[in-house]
Amino acid sequence: MTGRLAVIGLGPGAPGLITPDAAAALAAAEALYGYGPYLDRVPPRAGQSRHPSDNRVEIDRARAALSAAAAGASVAMVSGGDPGVFAMAAAVCEAVEHGPPEWRALDLSVQPGITAMLALAARAGAPLGHDFCAMSLSDNLKPWPLVERRLAAAAGAGFAIALYNPISSARPWQLGAAFAILRNHLPAETPVLFGRAVARAAERVTVARLDGAEAVPADMATCVIVGSAETRVVERPGLPPLVYSPRSAGGA
Amino acid sequence: MTGRLAVIGLGPGAPGLITPDAAAALAAAEALYGYGPYLDRVPPRAGQSRHPSDNRVEIDRARAALSAAAAGASVAMVSGGDPGVFAMAAAVCEAVEHGPPEWRALDLSVQPGITAMLALAARAGAPLGHDFCAMSLSDNLKPWPLVERRLAAAAGAGFAIALYNPISSARPWQLGAAFAILRNHLPAETPVLFGRAVARAAERVTVARLDGAEAVPADMATCVIVGSAETRVVERPGLPPLVYSPRSAGGA
Repeated sequence: MTGRLAVIGLGPGAPGLITPDAAAALAAAEALYGYGPYLDRVPPRAGQSRHPSDNRVEIDRARAALSAAAAGASVAMVSGGDPGVFAMAAAVCEAVEHGPPEWRALDLSVQPGITAMLALAARAGAPLGHDFCAMSLSDNLKPWPLVERRLAAAAGAGFAIALYNPISSARPWQLGAAFAILRNHLPAETPVLFGRAVARAAERVTVARLDGAEAVPADMATCVIVGSAETRVVERPGLPPLVYSPRSAGGA
Repeated sequence: MTGRLAVIGLGPGAPGLITPDAAAALAAAEALYGYGPYLDRVPPRAGQSRHPSDNRVEIDRARAALSAAAAGASVAMVSGGDPGVFAMAAAVCEAVEHGPPEWRALDLSVQPGITAMLALAARAGAPLGHDFCAMSLSDNLKPWPLVERRLAAAAGAGFAIALYNPISSARPWQLGAAFAILRNHLPAETPVLFGRAVARAAERVTVARLDGAEAVPADMATCVIVGSAETRVVERPGLPPLVYSPRSAGGA
């Protein structure tokens, strides 16, 4: 008997931003796994067991869910945003690759979701409307010099840059260091967006200029988008400005 | 009297992948604007006018929708995928910036959606599970040498690369040229994913190696994801392989 595992994107946290497919996959599961605060977003349902875990134990969490599926259960692994963007899908794939052969035979599916940068971009206008990249600023999983090299390469080549995991109590200086690097490659007036808890009650979206951007308004619930040299800010009377990256670049 | 404009992401095309917020915004609109084939995905509704337009007239389409909203209508602009990723949100912002002042006072909102690369990534495993970038291969809106420079920068810095608008009858050679550039920066066995019409009836997802990747299976309905040097392929008996980018990189 073989069960199944669905890795499910909850989106940014508003019920109106979870896809119907993701909601149906959640409802069909017998056992829910996930980081505690994400599991807390899923309404309780009779007959469903819940298995919250701490942050930073992604591989252990993935193995526990895969083991339960291999034992025959219908399992859901919940993930904030999109499971494929700095979230649980990669950890599950990694666990499958290095786990017992029977895990490769499981019915494994991924339900996409609205990832943080898209939710923030939608609030602001279209800052990712031209070529862009997404980077995690966490140096738990890669050496900091590689982060620096990527920031320089992305800014130098004209990508807008979405920064995930920008700052935490254990990594207090990285976002400020990232802004310092980006200032070497981008104009002083380059727009920087901070989106905290977008689409949730505590939502706060702010716009700064790169030369004045400070790491202070960011935390682990924040996504940061740094524009390219071509990103525009359109002021609006009585409304927040629109921030967008034009569709054309390089004089085209 | 001032109306409003909602720019709405339809996702990849399956009803189960449109968010409830996007569906509600569609239902609330009096007038729908959009590229014809995207409008065709929206079920008809009594009392709603429909204004389909051709491809490549994004700015004209944006201006028409903004004019209707400024005249007091509740207007929806539909977009495939996410409106903020190589779609209509940037065109609308551009039209606002260069249009009459009253357009800046409009109630303008963007409803995010599941963009093509996330739908494809979900089908394949987690190819975007580490740092990645998204680029349009269309050289209508930027000079080809800039595309070349960005491809080299992204591959050289270790980003997985999602390619939008990879090929069309008017741009037949660009995807092949992009693969040729990427071969200079990435190992021969780097996985390349082709996702055509993901989440629709005609869905076709294939995996190739970079040294054997050909532009042939791609068209305008295709999204292509080229892995980084660290992207893995996990073979599964009787199932498609999992393709994923490990969460850690650079030996961390």
